[in-house]
Amino acid sequence: MTTITEQETMAKAKVTTPADREIRIERIFNAPRERVWEAMTDPELIPEWWGRGNKLVIEKLEVKRGGHWRYVEHGPEGVNGFEGRFREVTPPERVVQTFEWDGMPGHVLINTTTLEDLGDGRTKLVTTSLFHTGMERDGFLQSGMEGGMNQSYEALDRVLAKMG
Amino acid sequence: MTTITEQETMAKAKVTTPADREIRIERIFNAPRERVWEAMTDPELIPEWWGRGNKLVIEKLEVKRGGHWRYVEHGPEGVNGFEGRFREVTPPERVVQTFEWDGMPGHVLINTTTLEDLGDGRTKLVTTSLFHTGMERDGFLQSGMEGGMNQSYEALDRVLAKMG
Repeated sequence: MTTITEQETMAKAKVTTPADREIRIERIFNAPRERVWEAMTDPELIPEWWGRGNKLVIEKLEVKRGGHWRYVEHGPEGVNGFEGRFREVTPPERVVQTFEWDGMPGHVLINTTTLEDLGDGRTKLVTTSLFHTGMERDGFLQSGMEGGMNQSYEALDRVLAKMG
Repeated sequence: MTTITEQETMAKAKVTTPADREIRIERIFNAPRERVWEAMTDPELIPEWWGRGNKLVIEKLEVKRGGHWRYVEHGPEGVNGFEGRFREVTPPERVVQTFEWDGMPGHVLINTTTLEDLGDGRTKLVTTSLFHTGMERDGFLQSGMEGGMNQSYEALDRVLAKMG
């Protein structure tokens, strides 16, 4: 039973709202930090997990301060583009980038992601998302982002296991 | 003396900070609203005033919801890129767009600009800038933006007079 509980804990990200314009996501991955970093920044690997099975086209990915990124997801419900720019890139521990969905252009959130080496071969990811307004934060929470994110991270679990 | 006072009032924008993450700019132009809108959105006219005499290259300008813009200013102190995306475009009265300077990539502010027809051939521009944090707002205020903006708007005065 303990094993099942641990697996369940790992499979779902912990989502909290520490401030009225923020979302905090915490998720543990069963892989060393360098491997998690690689899976999150390699344009060959990102399509294997980010789109949760949907075709994902990496139109641009410049993983450096000032660089731009743009992903286009082709799903059964249509085509969705996402884009942004990197504010800080410190491999393999920290990345700060903007995030914008084509469906709500000009609504920009800031994602700050840190990867913490847990010392036992596992890595803790923490992402804090900062919005311009509480309304935008609430709209994002209500968009189904949590379910989609959990599916992406479960696919990332599988990518990390294959890489090992 | 009255005339001089009126000219002075028009020449300087009124800059206030209505909230801790906001800057509000108010400026009256001696031209009808349609003409001000045209000077602010036409890629042939923008270089005549935006760069305050510096060469300005309009790399991209898609004045529509979801469209991107990017201007590169070539000045004596170097090359500065600025870019963003349009959230709302309602000619000739309202435009909402993101604004980012290459020197601080991933720091994004939202500019909401309205043009009000004053009914006497003049137009009142109001721009509200919303930042993610108060620190970013304060940094922007301390960057010399006010002096640069006043120079741009004085150049815009001249462009509007030529168009008339």
